[in-house]
Amino acid sequence: MRLYTQKATESPYWNEYMETMPREKLDQLHLRRLQRLIKYAYENIPMYQELYDKAHVKPEDIKMLDDYVEKIPSIDKPDILRYQAANPPFGGSIVRDSDEYLTFFFQTSGTTGTPMKEIGYYRDMLSTGWVFKWWAHGIRPADIFYFAFPFGTFMAFWCAYYDAVAMGAQVITSGGMTTEQRVRQILELKPTVLVATPTYAMRIAEMAREMGVDIAHSSIKYITSAGEAGYVLPTVRDAVEKAWGAKALDLYGISDLWGSTSWHCPVHPDRLHLTETIAYPLVLDKEGKLVPDGGIGEWTLTNYSTVMPLIKYRTHDTVEWHKETCECGRTWTWLRGGVLGRTDQMVTIKGTNVFPTAIQGIIGGIDGLTENLEIHILTGEGGDEIDIKVEAAPDVPAEKYEVLKKHLRGELQFRIGVKMKVDLLLPKTLPRYEVKAKRVFDHRKRK
Amino acid sequence: MRLYTQKATESPYWNEYMETMPREKLDQLHLRRLQRLIKYAYENIPMYQELYDKAHVKPEDIKMLDDYVEKIPSIDKPDILRYQAANPPFGGSIVRDSDEYLTFFFQTSGTTGTPMKEIGYYRDMLSTGWVFKWWAHGIRPADIFYFAFPFGTFMAFWCAYYDAVAMGAQVITSGGMTTEQRVRQILELKPTVLVATPTYAMRIAEMAREMGVDIAHSSIKYITSAGEAGYVLPTVRDAVEKAWGAKALDLYGISDLWGSTSWHCPVHPDRLHLTETIAYPLVLDKEGKLVPDGGIGEWTLTNYSTVMPLIKYRTHDTVEWHKETCECGRTWTWLRGGVLGRTDQMVTIKGTNVFPTAIQGIIGGIDGLTENLEIHILTGEGGDEIDIKVEAAPDVPAEKYEVLKKHLRGELQFRIGVKMKVDLLLPKTLPRYEVKAKRVFDHRKRK
Repeated sequence: MRLYTQKATESPYWNEYMETMPREKLDQLHLRRLQRLIKYAYENIPMYQELYDKAHVKPEDIKMLDDYVEKIPSIDKPDILRYQAANPPFGGSIVRDSDEYLTFFFQTSGTTGTPMKEIGYYRDMLSTGWVFKWWAHGIRPADIFYFAFPFGTFMAFWCAYYDAVAMGAQVITSGGMTTEQRVRQILELKPTVLVATPTYAMRIAEMAREMGVDIAHSSIKYITSAGEAGYVLPTVRDAVEKAWGAKALDLYGISDLWGSTSWHCPVHPDRLHLTETIAYPLVLDKEGKLVPDGGIGEWTLTNYSTVMPLIKYRTHDTVEWHKETCECGRTWTWLRGGVLGRTDQMVTIKGTNVFPTAIQGIIGGIDGLTENLEIHILTGEGGDEIDIKVEAAPDVPAEKYEVLKKHLRGELQFRIGVKMKVDLLLPKTLPRYEVKAKRVFDHRKRK
Repeated sequence: MRLYTQKATESPYWNEYMETMPREKLDQLHLRRLQRLIKYAYENIPMYQELYDKAHVKPEDIKMLDDYVEKIPSIDKPDILRYQAANPPFGGSIVRDSDEYLTFFFQTSGTTGTPMKEIGYYRDMLSTGWVFKWWAHGIRPADIFYFAFPFGTFMAFWCAYYDAVAMGAQVITSGGMTTEQRVRQILELKPTVLVATPTYAMRIAEMAREMGVDIAHSSIKYITSAGEAGYVLPTVRDAVEKAWGAKALDLYGISDLWGSTSWHCPVHPDRLHLTETIAYPLVLDKEGKLVPDGGIGEWTLTNYSTVMPLIKYRTHDTVEWHKETCECGRTWTWLRGGVLGRTDQMVTIKGTNVFPTAIQGIIGGIDGLTENLEIHILTGEGGDEIDIKVEAAPDVPAEKYEVLKKHLRGELQFRIGVKMKVDLLLPKTLPRYEVKAKRVFDHRKRK
């Protein structure tokens, strides 16, 4: 007996109709959904009513997608935090009188400031954002998911958990365990899919090595991640794939935007497709004007959530977007190279724009260096400066450290065009993170 | 807008039809469900086929409840462990060819030996075993649940989590947090229901005191527990209710028997009602014969699970059972005083049967002693012996320890009739447990 027909199981699509819908038809659908959402938000969410009144825009002004692009003001995290602070925990940021619909509580990790509180209802949790990715890469209901995750208030892996259940797969939860216990459990229970951040997947592999376990030949066939700049970067992907002998599947989503995930294409691993059943995308320039297809700008999303929708929400992530149909058959918007950086983390040094992820990519390409690194952005005498700390691999002898350091400095200057300070550290010097690794530390003084 | 009608909200029953079904009709329903289950298990679960063949019983032999009582052999944990060990993880203990129906993986805590592996499908998870209790005591969908639980492979609180969601309440999960962070989060997010073991609920209160927080006036109105001898014992209940200024709701279930919970009656707090939508109960004597209503014996349950049903499963818990309709209106079987002890933990000292829970009850009734205790059962020269270690309350001066020790020794001898060795320890000497406190240590040599 099977949960799915043979035909459904063999399809490379979780929802072929939606994933391959012609762009024009998909945009018509988005327009209808946006019109309904904007009307609903204006009538029921105080924050949007005030925002739209101030901008002199009424829901009925949105007659086509151009109206949405030009007339609807974007919203930013500080706006929402202001409403939440005024009347905690949610204030005017959610649907009025929704007390009996507040089900799943989460909050952002606070990587870039005060944690934002998030609340959703069943439909938000069951949006199956992750399943699109898993299905595209060959994961099926007979797979067994192992969650190396503490199940706190971080949303992403809770969504992954619900999505695995919704797909019909088996879930093993290891919330309160140590890394060593997790290694033992993986060997005993033989799961096929590991859910963990890239950093923590590497930590488990490191622990397995210390225990004398050959984790590259375990039952794990897929590693599926979120929470950090991940497997869309070839160097991070290669490190994890080699350590585990498994395929690494990236997913990018910011937890502010419940379920609005992008994930890497099975044909072009440098492309991230946005799950357009859940969100509608725009890329905007610094003035808030639309960036044409193929251009670079700020990823700005609307997600179709129930109690706390975010409409034209600024992610502060910089992306290069494309709308032409991909060779995988999907019409869904894709990003080349994933997230290129954060608008608020971009460093301009003597006219050169530097993104921390670019630095990470270069370090990952150098033998003898590890993915355990920190990027510190400082205000120096001549403007912004970057200091890098990176751990050497355990097999690098100490006498080679100076050569390696020099090599990295040269590569950074050659490929990015900027001089940076580099520290090469002994293995296991930097802190390890179970949920979300902190890689970028911005010490610049704000005005 | 409300999830429930006014009438449903005001009802003291979550499912009035089932909770108040006349005993005769309820037994007819159980008979039909048992007949179907036994036939299904015989045809699809190798373990039961072998067990019933060996006992020369066929599913069609079960024509009335008496047949079930007399003909169906009971099953014990070692039987299941044998099948699981022969072909891990589940072997012949679950429904054949159910690969695509294995959803939720858990295992028992191993308190009484090797952990048993458990697997269930959606229906098992959505059986709402906990909701019957919560609803009876006045918890409603507008309540906010705070889970002080690491979300690993311990089943009970995962069921509570799903049940809170199914009821329509809000859930806040604090899987990876420290006790101090949990205190802060409770103060910030204002949940109304705390889900924790009795021991850990006390630990949080202790931490709050250290932080200078008056937790007795927090937003928490209910504490709902599982995993240990709990709030059906007046002394444990009083300690938690006083510390939190909240109502403590007990639940007894053994995680082997997915969802088969008993919980304390809103009218008679010394009674635990079995959720008869999920399980059918018997109480058996040492020879496996039925103990009449009002008698004491081993709690033996059948649960209506999907992939891994347990039929006539011996819990090794000793109970006094009653079938007459309760003053709360429920016809569901109830146990007086909860679990009286475990058949395999019962100690016979010079002809007196001693249960560890009785000792716990006496200790809880003495001022100056705390609920942090250990009961050690040893083989002495003249037979079984009991050593007790218990922490004094923080406000007891050291010079009073001897008097207190003597008083406890006297109480135990007077009320149980047996001499025991007593150690009085300084506060915080014994280990604390987040999931399930270990209170009884049986060091007796097994033959």
